[in-house]
Amino acid sequence: MKIPNLIGYHTSAEGTIIFQTINPITDKSHPALFIEATKEEVNRSAILAKAAYRTFSRTSSKVRAHFLRAIAIELELYKTDLLATYTSESGLNEQRAEIEFSRTIFQLQAFADLISSENWEIKHHVEADPSRIPTPKPQLTKYKLGIGPIVVFGASNFPFAYSTIGGDTVAALAAGCPVIVKSHPFHAHTSYKVAQLVVKVAQELGLPEGVFSHVNAIGYEVGQQLVQHPYIQAVGFTGSIQGGLALQQLAQQREVPIPVFAEMGSLNPVVIFPSALKQQSESIANKLALSITQGSGQFCTKPGALFFIQSDETNYFLETFRSLFEQQASYSMVHPTIARTYTKRAKHVLNQADVKLFAQGNENEACNSGVPQLSITDGKTFNTNTILQEEVFGPHALLVICEDQNELEQILENIPGQLTFSIFQKDENIQTSNLFYLAQEKAGRVILNGVPTGVEVSPAMQHGGPFPSSSDSRFTAVGTDSIERFLRGVSIQK
Amino acid sequence: MKIPNLIGYHTSAEGTIIFQTINPITDKSHPALFIEATKEEVNRSAILAKAAYRTFSRTSSKVRAHFLRAIAIELELYKTDLLATYTSESGLNEQRAEIEFSRTIFQLQAFADLISSENWEIKHHVEADPSRIPTPKPQLTKYKLGIGPIVVFGASNFPFAYSTIGGDTVAALAAGCPVIVKSHPFHAHTSYKVAQLVVKVAQELGLPEGVFSHVNAIGYEVGQQLVQHPYIQAVGFTGSIQGGLALQQLAQQREVPIPVFAEMGSLNPVVIFPSALKQQSESIANKLALSITQGSGQFCTKPGALFFIQSDETNYFLETFRSLFEQQASYSMVHPTIARTYTKRAKHVLNQADVKLFAQGNENEACNSGVPQLSITDGKTFNTNTILQEEVFGPHALLVICEDQNELEQILENIPGQLTFSIFQKDENIQTSNLFYLAQEKAGRVILNGVPTGVEVSPAMQHGGPFPSSSDSRFTAVGTDSIERFLRGVSIQK
Repeated sequence: MKIPNLIGYHTSAEGTIIFQTINPITDKSHPALFIEATKEEVNRSAILAKAAYRTFSRTSSKVRAHFLRAIAIELELYKTDLLATYTSESGLNEQRAEIEFSRTIFQLQAFADLISSENWEIKHHVEADPSRIPTPKPQLTKYKLGIGPIVVFGASNFPFAYSTIGGDTVAALAAGCPVIVKSHPFHAHTSYKVAQLVVKVAQELGLPEGVFSHVNAIGYEVGQQLVQHPYIQAVGFTGSIQGGLALQQLAQQREVPIPVFAEMGSLNPVVIFPSALKQQSESIANKLALSITQGSGQFCTKPGALFFIQSDETNYFLETFRSLFEQQASYSMVHPTIARTYTKRAKHVLNQADVKLFAQGNENEACNSGVPQLSITDGKTFNTNTILQEEVFGPHALLVICEDQNELEQILENIPGQLTFSIFQKDENIQTSNLFYLAQEKAGRVILNGVPTGVEVSPAMQHGGPFPSSSDSRFTAVGTDSIERFLRGVSIQK
Repeated sequence: MKIPNLIGYHTSAEGTIIFQTINPITDKSHPALFIEATKEEVNRSAILAKAAYRTFSRTSSKVRAHFLRAIAIELELYKTDLLATYTSESGLNEQRAEIEFSRTIFQLQAFADLISSENWEIKHHVEADPSRIPTPKPQLTKYKLGIGPIVVFGASNFPFAYSTIGGDTVAALAAGCPVIVKSHPFHAHTSYKVAQLVVKVAQELGLPEGVFSHVNAIGYEVGQQLVQHPYIQAVGFTGSIQGGLALQQLAQQREVPIPVFAEMGSLNPVVIFPSALKQQSESIANKLALSITQGSGQFCTKPGALFFIQSDETNYFLETFRSLFEQQASYSMVHPTIARTYTKRAKHVLNQADVKLFAQGNENEACNSGVPQLSITDGKTFNTNTILQEEVFGPHALLVICEDQNELEQILENIPGQLTFSIFQKDENIQTSNLFYLAQEKAGRVILNGVPTGVEVSPAMQHGGPFPSSSDSRFTAVGTDSIERFLRGVSIQK
């Protein structure tokens, strides 16, 4: 079976580069053959997107809300098949597939609700005052306008919620921007099936061809061509720091530079104070173990470094945490390359001077499994070795034992920007503490007495922090505010 | 008299590079000697700004509103002296100085009002729901936090309103960001006098040292060092395309890239339909002549190209416009280099094939005056010669006579991004016309039956359009929304 590209409302498979996806649990390839998009096909998708933009950006936001809701209905109709394809391509289990599917539906509805609200498209309106001195005051209305065709890169770790019709795509469509999705090659079939439904709905609703296209690619070239294409106006990306920076550089080198919103890596520091451990040691240990290992730790908000202060409470907690962690199971990661990179990176951390293995989960016969692992070091070592400050994507965390709060804060002053920063502390004054402000300077989201995984889709969510956790801390990649990435103001003056 | 830098609360004049400002009307230098900031002084200003950030960004927005209002009061106290320095350094007249001064005061008050409004700093708040299935819903509050120390480059054409305590600085301070101003060397004394007042108020209010610094510079090095300094988190710039792009490139090459909001050049197309000329020929001619020549055309929204459709109405209008324009006086421009560049650029336009002189204002004995000039060409010539599509900063506009509306729209499809786009048309359906949508795609502000100069400071103002008119069309440089350039969201989760 050959899987074509969806260029506007037409299937197209003119290329000669062919690839397959695999089931990471069995390590066997799926039979479907994906035909990578050619330069000509990519160009056609951009030309169609540009042509669609003028019509689509002028549709009433009610029409776009209807589009998003109709996609949600269509996804529900084909849910069984989509979930089966998802699990077979990602190795993620049914339960996770269900949660992510629901999240995807919820996102469609949340954005539909947002743009359905009364006068959503008007940002400000100021009445004229012809009698103003020395000059009459004009009437000014500031509208929200989609910025143009957007390229969305599917994310390896979220085949539904951060890929084809995931957060970036839905925000862009809601904004009135046509979208070209470059599907992630790890789950190209899941992506294609979702894309077919989106195209079907768009066509049924009579939306302009090019409002959505979907291209297959195993290499970098297709993505590069898209980011450099003069008709593309912005990019949404979730992935590694190297990937995000490469795209941003390409986007800046264009004759007309465009914004790339890249949600990149994060260590997601968690600070656990002795005061919190006095009463809730076990509950915190449980929460942290789950947060580090669930979904094989393949979340951008997985806690990657846990900071403690030397104390009896810490020592007691660590023993509880160790035995709990050793019971954690291993699961297949989403792809052999992800599993290999995880194992290599976790080993690399362990090979650093003054870093030791603290606990390890159970190994698993399944292919490509990521064995949960905790390493341990001291504050000074963490502070002086930047390798320890980089994300290990997978079920790994580094425990950092600091001498005192002073050392802890000095260390955290030096870490790079983060998506999240969590603090477990039983102190009523926590919200006026220096650490609380430091956390806000370092991260987009500060969690008090909780873990960073489980990112709410909410207007109040900030998912995106100072560089390098994201490319522009002024925007969020999750929640309805994420639409702001793809909108600009236009004032009409009369 | 030596004019030092203001590094935090201390004057400092350690450098050896010295420069003076001139009175462009007399071409004579003023006696004050400005000492360019040294690398060490620039570095100190950044260190102080970083230290001030933690305290200043945590102040209540009421405190910052009070700061802005106190600055406005101080400016009023010293108004006479400030205006005298302004006119003597810029050659702009008293009336313009008054208007710009009032605008500066108004901006301070508008931002003070904005951040004084109830719960201004909370963007969204979502209550917890512990009973939610499958996972409890946490409480999430999304705050607005200043992104860090900002560098503001004074603008040559707005010594008050877009320089020292102008739009960028006020937006940044309102956001809780310390500011380092690199004063514009053309009006360094005006800038210094304003800066002294800002520092005085900050000190009196007990704000942290480093909340505001002011550095002198005649060359590029000081600005470069500031943009590259690791403690600086964003840049505000108003000026040429070359200047803006150079800063943006520097900012992108940093280890931690930062946003540069650059408000750059714009042609500000004005389309004048025969229908509008049937009744209002004279009134439109008057408006346009004033809009092109006032302040010697030194506005970023000065109309640079007027588009007409061949017709009797157009021919009649052009005769009226010509005789009106020939009565326009010449005034000194803000600096000899600006006047020289204007004259050169206007001549360069005239030297293009199929471009002719259409009308010229009166010459003036005063030094450095910019003679108002209108050139004329046809649609085809404009479309094929990109030199004609570039801004001529000064009292110049190019008249473009198109064969028909079809040619007009084709031409305008090809122009680069603009700050403004004006349409004079008497047609009730104008707001559903293709041209109206095209105008919105090309520009940040669309003016119906009016001229683009006279930028309202209003929440509904969008001053910033698609590249290259500004570096990021999602933000505005004028109006209270401009604070969004310097804010990021931080979610607090409990």
